[in-house]
Amino acid sequence: MAEGAAESGKLTLEGLRQRLVEFAAARRWEPYHTPKNLAAALSVEAGELLEIFQWLTPEQAGAVMSDPERAHRVRDEVADVLAYLVQFCTVVGVDPLEALAAKIDRNEQRFPAPDAASDVNPDVG
Amino acid sequence: MAEGAAESGKLTLEGLRQRLVEFAAARRWEPYHTPKNLAAALSVEAGELLEIFQWLTPEQAGAVMSDPERAHRVRDEVADVLAYLVQFCTVVGVDPLEALAAKIDRNEQRFPAPDAASDVNPDVG
Amino acid sequence: MAEGAAESGKLTLEGLRQRLVEFAAARRWEPYHTPKNLAAALSVEAGELLEIFQWLTPEQAGAVMSDPERAHRVRDEVADVLAYLVQFCTVVGVDPLEALAAKIDRNEQRFPAPDAASDVNPDVG
Amino acid sequence: MAEGAAESGKLTLEGLRQRLVEFAAARRWEPYHTPKNLAAALSVEAGELLEIFQWLTPEQAGAVMSDPERAHRVRDEVADVLAYLVQFCTVVGVDPLEALAAKIDRNEQRFPAPDAASDVNPDVG
Repeated sequence: MAEGAAESGKLTLEGLRQRLVEFAAARRWEPYHTPKNLAAALSVEAGELLEIFQWLTPEQAGAVMSDPERAHRVRDEVADVLAYLVQFCTVVGVDPLEALAAKIDRNEQRFPAPDAASDVNPDVG
Repeated sequence: MAEGAAESGKLTLEGLRQRLVEFAAARRWEPYHTPKNLAAALSVEAGELLEIFQWLTPEQAGAVMSDPERAHRVRDEVADVLAYLVQFCTVVGVDPLEALAAKIDRNEQRFPAPDAASDVNPDVG
Repeated sequence: MAEGAAESGKLTLEGLRQRLVEFAAARRWEPYHTPKNLAAALSVEAGELLEIFQWLTPEQAGAVMSDPERAHRVRDEVADVLAYLVQFCTVVGVDPLEALAAKIDRNEQRFPAPDAASDVNPDVG
Repeated sequence: MAEGAAESGKLTLEGLRQRLVEFAAARRWEPYHTPKNLAAALSVEAGELLEIFQWLTPEQAGAVMSDPERAHRVRDEVADVLAYLVQFCTVVGVDPLEALAAKIDRNEQRFPAPDAASDVNPDVG
């Protein structure tokens, strides 16, 4: 069975997390993987994802995946952001799926689904 | 069965993704959720996570979760980063787990596990 | 003569830099102002400036200063970014004006002014 | 007299601002230089500056300018951040020096200089 895959053959975040832990351990990178460094690295990679879009019009940005070179960069930066997020969560002991489920619960209270929500500030942050 | 949970009762990224899609649709926020806006929002939230650590020493940063208020902020910002990453991936049609699995595969080629890797640049980006 | 002003009465970056140095010294904040912390803080504040724009259409973003509350936030975040940039430069011993002048010189070589430059990648970074 | 220099021969932010305006105009890059795009670019460049420091210990970060290659990257990223900040300010009509002077004034009210300030939160943001 492939690493990172659940018994059903599907990839899971937990399976990938374990691969990342083993990857860093085999290369002795754990000393670098402090919470502060990983939070910085996550922010840097999120900036690299944004860089792909910084000069694009909304229309060009909407078609970003139709350009093979840009599409590859997008997948690559998505992977980096997710990798550092998972590694950050590992070192601070947070389950990212539980954190997100709890946040959605809170946001459902904070932003009740309206009949007409067109004026609502879309910030879920 | 709780939303966002697989049949086994465990949370899955796909289950949470569906909750986020329904959440945004119910509030009519999709027009705001362009690839460029979501990439910007992801970067902003990653900055908010980093903000927690910006003045902390490595020691203080390592103990961040022992402070209840900071621990709550960490979970909250982790959730925001993951939410925007998942929403970004939805609108551009990228599977973040596949993207990460492919990146780990590439990094295993690019950074072969050494016997002694202490001098290796730890950047997996 | 007001602090931060040259003899002509105009504000100068050097005058403001001196005010920032004195401000931090009077509050004993120098120990926090390491290069790494200031680079992180600069990135965080740049994210806060971007946050103002993240959900705006290009048209709304172009009119940002006609909304008094947003205009105040813009000025406030510009000030924070410039403050941390100047403080960062102080602790690493870089003159930001010299660095920018040298970069413009390099970019004039790298991107010769064309007769028709419409296809040129606009990234000066 | 060199461009970007005041009569005294010293570089000024206003002189460099004018060079940046002319540089963009000669290359017809103004259409890309919207407030939203420039705020994104500023954030991206601040991330690139942070990237230099992300894996460094505080000690290594403190000695960053003694490594010629890193020192060059630092000056280059400082220039990029300042360039985009100045260009952003130009398109939204903000004077960055006035904004910073006003912010320092506010912070002097908000954080009175104490006799002993060692426990004060150092965030001036």
